[in-house]
Amino acid sequence: MRRIAILGSTGSIGRSTLSVAEAYPERFQVVALAAGANLDAAFEQACRWRPRLVSVAAENDAEILHSRLKKQHLNQIEVVQGAAGTVRVATHPEVDFVVSAIVGVAGLEATYEAVKAGKTVGLANKECLVAAGELITAEARKQGKPLLPIDSEHNAVHQCLRGGKMEEVERIWLTASGGPFLNTPRSEFAAITVEQALNHPTWRMGKRITIDSATLMNKGFEVIEACRLFHMPPRKVEVIVHPQSTIHSMVEFVDGSILAQFSMTDMRLPILYALTYPERIQSDMRFPVMDLRHLDFSPPDVQKFPCLRLAYEAAEAGGAKTVALNAADEVAVAAFLEGGIRFDEIPRIIEDTLSATNCGGLESIAKVLEADAGARRYAKQRVADLSGNVARSRATSFV
Amino acid sequence: MRRIAILGSTGSIGRSTLSVAEAYPERFQVVALAAGANLDAAFEQACRWRPRLVSVAAENDAEILHSRLKKQHLNQIEVVQGAAGTVRVATHPEVDFVVSAIVGVAGLEATYEAVKAGKTVGLANKECLVAAGELITAEARKQGKPLLPIDSEHNAVHQCLRGGKMEEVERIWLTASGGPFLNTPRSEFAAITVEQALNHPTWRMGKRITIDSATLMNKGFEVIEACRLFHMPPRKVEVIVHPQSTIHSMVEFVDGSILAQFSMTDMRLPILYALTYPERIQSDMRFPVMDLRHLDFSPPDVQKFPCLRLAYEAAEAGGAKTVALNAADEVAVAAFLEGGIRFDEIPRIIEDTLSATNCGGLESIAKVLEADAGARRYAKQRVADLSGNVARSRATSFV
Repeated sequence: MRRIAILGSTGSIGRSTLSVAEAYPERFQVVALAAGANLDAAFEQACRWRPRLVSVAAENDAEILHSRLKKQHLNQIEVVQGAAGTVRVATHPEVDFVVSAIVGVAGLEATYEAVKAGKTVGLANKECLVAAGELITAEARKQGKPLLPIDSEHNAVHQCLRGGKMEEVERIWLTASGGPFLNTPRSEFAAITVEQALNHPTWRMGKRITIDSATLMNKGFEVIEACRLFHMPPRKVEVIVHPQSTIHSMVEFVDGSILAQFSMTDMRLPILYALTYPERIQSDMRFPVMDLRHLDFSPPDVQKFPCLRLAYEAAEAGGAKTVALNAADEVAVAAFLEGGIRFDEIPRIIEDTLSATNCGGLESIAKVLEADAGARRYAKQRVADLSGNVARSRATSFV
Repeated sequence: MRRIAILGSTGSIGRSTLSVAEAYPERFQVVALAAGANLDAAFEQACRWRPRLVSVAAENDAEILHSRLKKQHLNQIEVVQGAAGTVRVATHPEVDFVVSAIVGVAGLEATYEAVKAGKTVGLANKECLVAAGELITAEARKQGKPLLPIDSEHNAVHQCLRGGKMEEVERIWLTASGGPFLNTPRSEFAAITVEQALNHPTWRMGKRITIDSATLMNKGFEVIEACRLFHMPPRKVEVIVHPQSTIHSMVEFVDGSILAQFSMTDMRLPILYALTYPERIQSDMRFPVMDLRHLDFSPPDVQKFPCLRLAYEAAEAGGAKTVALNAADEVAVAAFLEGGIRFDEIPRIIEDTLSATNCGGLESIAKVLEADAGARRYAKQRVADLSGNVARSRATSFV
């Protein structure tokens, strides 16, 4: 019986995790849940799963949840709140597996505390590796516990790596769908609208990750995550465009053999893999191998997608540079979505912010958050400068 | 230092093995060689590698080789001959790894003796698993030594299986190029000429294996080999047509994940894998991942290629049936090559021979060879019957 805590239980990964737990009641016990602002969903999950502990974001919500649970005669469920509440969920003594699925730097502290408390962690939060990867992976090594990736690419790499020893790895190949602008000429990038950029060919996702897919920054983050998770230098992590996204990723070994992983595109599969590792258990999520048709591959165009180059540079530098990469990207994408900057100005904001960032080491989560806040301030200032330019250039065009 | 013996040293796999040994002189020592009738090649290999022991087929050749080596002041190399000589090579006390690459049932006895003597065996001989697989794998299990497959499909499966435990395997997917008649309508099969059948789209191989590829019988043999090597029932071994032959094979696990292996199409790679297993060592045989283009897949047409169905039936029955399958196929293919029967009569000969074969267990190599001889006699008789028909039908068409 695996006793699990979920950080971000009402989000997409959180709900998929609960659906996996539902399918295997004899294997998984849900001990603690950290939800966000969705009070109704938190209440429903608490009633259904009867965990020991539930955390919500706001103090007021915690009080409401407590009284609603009391009415259901579920007052044995402890209700906590805020960042401290999330940490209590992550470190609950009866938990042995923590699914880290809170989006953004908000997930950092609790995930780090879970690792420090000796829990096995399934990682779906990008920032844990991009911003604080060096800290978190060092702590996991110290604890002797695996960090199990839940996104499909790194989960695929984790599986392929079983085909050899770490020192026998020549290269990791991350596949990329290529996003909606794979075949758009670079000259048209300045005119890309928010609507075009949000129209991802294969996936329905949140807005930021959709734009990150369109700029290939999402793949850049995955390069950094792979470097940290698997202790690889950036030159050993390559990106290959594969529009069908059938092969989730590949590992090339020193002898010339390559292992590739594929499966149905369903997040429950990497979640199940992480939750049961090192075992595999039966699922009904079968990939229709007989329907395999036409897989395409091509190298990425780094000229057209400078975000990918910037990610490699940040990965090479490490420390505060990858924190700044993530922070500046979040700011730039938000500015693009609000119409403040052009699509092709996203990498410009990021590049400027990276240049202004000192590559210091980050010895605590507090230092990571400080670097993050500094990079955000800088990026916002650059957005303001450019928005002025955009306004000016628009004005000019009216002359 | 791995000390190796090669059974079939002057054949294609034998020469590739020596080329691997040449590339890693610090890792491999060639201790014993079993050549066939190619005396000059045997002499050259003995001079180059200075093994302890060389075996050739004919007694006369052994004498000539001995005196030629003596002239080179290499009389410390012992020269032996015949089946007993091959067994001595396979069981030489200084050898720890035996490459089994003699074509046909001639390789059976020596390979079995190598396994019995506790050697690790790299298998390139098909008959070892198709005809005597139950015996040889049982002996290897008893000895606690791995049988390492050297053909590209099973080598790929061996690599993919590292991604989980044996009891976590849902299915093995063997890829098939589909042969030259993948897109030929079934109605044209009766008129296929020897020249057409020998014109394989991607591979240059021996004549029998080229015809076996055209009938898909070669894939059928590989199904049986996979069943025996990996202890899988036939229903768990599927064939999928993949004309590019880029993916060498795949393993599907119970949780829904599939691992696939690919690499350059060069036999030195599976040989290197087998020789260094469980390690992997650096090679310069890099697959150009960035050149990956358009992989196609489709299910095999068992109506058009009845040999595949016959192989599954023989695999299910086991024992003498798979011996008969191999023997009858060899006879039928030879008859087709000599113009005695039509292309579409190959499966007919095999099916008739299978029907006439009792499915007895085979408790020794001698029994295997006896069943083999019996099936050959039967198949030859059926060929003679059909050839008569062919002659008659040809005569008829002259009326």
